[in-house]
Amino acid sequence: MTHTVRVALVGLGNVGRALLDLMISKAGTLRDQYGLELVLTGAADSSGAVLDAQGLAPGELRAHKSSGGGAGNYRGGQAGMSAPQMVELVAADVLVEAAAVNLQNGQPGLDCARAALRRGIGVVLADKGPLVHAFGELTAAAKAARFGLAYSATVCGALPVVNIGQRDLVACDVRLVRGIFNSTSNSILQAMAGGGSYEQALRQAQLDGIAEADPSLDVEGWDTANKLVIITNSILGQPATLADVQPVVGITKISAAEIHERAALGQVVKLVATAERENGRYALSVQPEWLPLNEFLAGVTGWEMGIVFDTDIMGLQQFKVDERGPVPTAAAVLRDVINLAAKPAS
Amino acid sequence: MTHTVRVALVGLGNVGRALLDLMISKAGTLRDQYGLELVLTGAADSSGAVLDAQGLAPGELRAHKSSGGGAGNYRGGQAGMSAPQMVELVAADVLVEAAAVNLQNGQPGLDCARAALRRGIGVVLADKGPLVHAFGELTAAAKAARFGLAYSATVCGALPVVNIGQRDLVACDVRLVRGIFNSTSNSILQAMAGGGSYEQALRQAQLDGIAEADPSLDVEGWDTANKLVIITNSILGQPATLADVQPVVGITKISAAEIHERAALGQVVKLVATAERENGRYALSVQPEWLPLNEFLAGVTGWEMGIVFDTDIMGLQQFKVDERGPVPTAAAVLRDVINLAAKPAS
Repeated sequence: MTHTVRVALVGLGNVGRALLDLMISKAGTLRDQYGLELVLTGAADSSGAVLDAQGLAPGELRAHKSSGGGAGNYRGGQAGMSAPQMVELVAADVLVEAAAVNLQNGQPGLDCARAALRRGIGVVLADKGPLVHAFGELTAAAKAARFGLAYSATVCGALPVVNIGQRDLVACDVRLVRGIFNSTSNSILQAMAGGGSYEQALRQAQLDGIAEADPSLDVEGWDTANKLVIITNSILGQPATLADVQPVVGITKISAAEIHERAALGQVVKLVATAERENGRYALSVQPEWLPLNEFLAGVTGWEMGIVFDTDIMGLQQFKVDERGPVPTAAAVLRDVINLAAKPAS
Repeated sequence: MTHTVRVALVGLGNVGRALLDLMISKAGTLRDQYGLELVLTGAADSSGAVLDAQGLAPGELRAHKSSGGGAGNYRGGQAGMSAPQMVELVAADVLVEAAAVNLQNGQPGLDCARAALRRGIGVVLADKGPLVHAFGELTAAAKAARFGLAYSATVCGALPVVNIGQRDLVACDVRLVRGIFNSTSNSILQAMAGGGSYEQALRQAQLDGIAEADPSLDVEGWDTANKLVIITNSILGQPATLADVQPVVGITKISAAEIHERAALGQVVKLVATAERENGRYALSVQPEWLPLNEFLAGVTGWEMGIVFDTDIMGLQQFKVDERGPVPTAAAVLRDVINLAAKPAS
C-alpha cells in the first residue's frame, strides 16, 4: 500500500531544484522501499507561488525555473504571493523550506515554518536561518505538529551529524565537538596550499560555481557558526544563538605565504568550529587553526566536511563526508521527509 | 514523569557487567534527560539465573559476579536455570542479550530472543550470533513485539553503523561498503608494524587483556564476517549468512617481514570487510589488504574501527571510532534500550 505525502516547497534555488529532480529519479525507490508517494502541492520562490492540490509536475516546474521562470509565472502561479502566504493556503503534510539563508532575521523561512507548524504541517528545513533565530520556539511548536520538525540537511548536508548526535550519542556526556563545516572555505584553503593567493583561489572557486558571488557567509565563518549554533542547541542541549559564538573569524586573513611556511613544519590550516565544555557550559568559537597533519580534521580535505565528538562512554567518534553540489543536501531533505512520514503522529 | 523500563539481562561477561555499571552511573541522566528508570528484573549466565520482579540491585550483582559468583548462586538465584527459561519467566519490557557469540548456532541467545519476542518483550542484542543465524526470522517476529528489536551494539560497538545505514542513508543506492571491524586484529597488525612477530604481538595482546585466550574468532576473520553479514542484511537489504562471505581470511598468515617491506612502499595492511555490488548483488569478502597510506581505512589505526559507505546521492561517507574495553558496547546497548523505550508500540 502506498501512502501519499503532500509536499510544499519554499525555495527553488540549487537545493530546491535538486529535490525536484530526486522526487522524479527516486520515485520508484520511495514507492518500493518505503511505500511512499510524494506529491508536490505548492511551491514558492521570490517571484511568487503556485498551488495545486492535485499535484504539480516536478519536472515541468524544474524546467520552467531553469529556463529563467519562477513560481509566480508558472502555469497557475500567482506573481507576488509570498512564501508564508503559500504556506497558509497549501494542502500539505510537510513543508520543505529551502530558501536562501537570511542571517538577519531568518525570514521568510521562519514565518513559513511558524505557519506550517501552526497548521499542523510538518517542517523539514534545509535553511539554517529559522533554527539559528528561533530554535526553542520552533522545537516547542513542533511537538504539537502532525509530522514534527527535522533539519538534518542544515549541518553538513548528507552527513547525518544532527541525527547521530540526537539519536545515537544517547546518554553520552559530549565533552568536546570540533568540526569543519564549510566546504567552500576548505576548498579555497586547499587551493592556496597548491599555489596562489586568497583572491586568486576565491575567484577560481567563483568561476567553478563553488563560491557565491557574495562569498562572505562562507569565507567569513558565519555559515560555520550557524551550523555550530544548530549543533549546540540540538545535540548539546544548550540554548545558543550566533551572539554566543566568539570569536567568529573567517579565512580572509590567511596568507599563502604562511600556509607554505607552516606546511614545512607539518601543519595545515583549517577553519574549525569548536564547542568545548568549560565550567558546565559549552564555549563556542569559529576560527582558523593550524593542525598537525596526523590529526583527523587535517585529513578533511578539499570538498570534505567532518566532525569529531569526544564522549565519555562512546569513545572518540569521527565522521567525514565528500559531497559535491546541491544533491546531497537535497537527499538529506528527502531523508527527513521520509523519516517524518514514517513516524506516527505523536 | 518517569517511565519504568524492566530489563532482563542474559550474559554477565564484560559487556553485561559494563551495562550494570552504566545502569548505576547513568541513572540520573536517564531520569533527567529521558524520563526513564531502568529496573533489572532478571539475569542469567552459564551458572543459572535469578529473577526478582521488584528489581535486582545492579551493583550487588556486579560485585557478586566480579568476586567469582554467578547468577545461579546469587541471592534468590536458581542454579542450572537456563537463559531461555529465565526469559520465559521474567517480568520484563526489554531483554538485553549479551551472551558470548556462538558461531555454530547462535545459542542460547537465539532461543532467548525468540522467547522474548513471542512474549511481546523487546530485544536488544549485543550478541551477533542470533542475527547471523536468523536475521529474517527475528526481524519478522519483532514486528509483533511491543518494543521491537535493536542491535546497534553488534557492529563497531558505539559507532552507530547500523543506525546510520538504516535511518540516515535513506533512499540511497549504496554501491560499496568497506570497513575495519575488529580492533583486536587491527591492534595486532599495528604491533607487528612496530616490531615483533605475529605470535609475539598476539601473546602481548592476550597479556594486555585485549585478545581472548582463544583468539580465533578475531584473528581468523569471523568476527569481522559476522558484522559484515549483519550490515548486509540490515542496511543493504540482501539476505546473507556467513556462508555468503567468501573468502574469509584472517591475519594469521601475515608476516612481520612483509609488513616492513610494504611499509617502505608506503603501504599498510588492514583486515578489510567488503560488500561490493556486482550484477545487482553484493559480493561479500573479508581479507587482509595492503592499502596506500592516504586511504581512509589506512588511517584507522590501533584500537580504532571504521567504515566507508560509497553512495549515489549522499556522497562518500567515512566514519571511525576509537573505543576501548566493553563500556562503549554496553553504551550502545543502553542507547538501544532508550530508543526502543521512547518509540511507541507499533
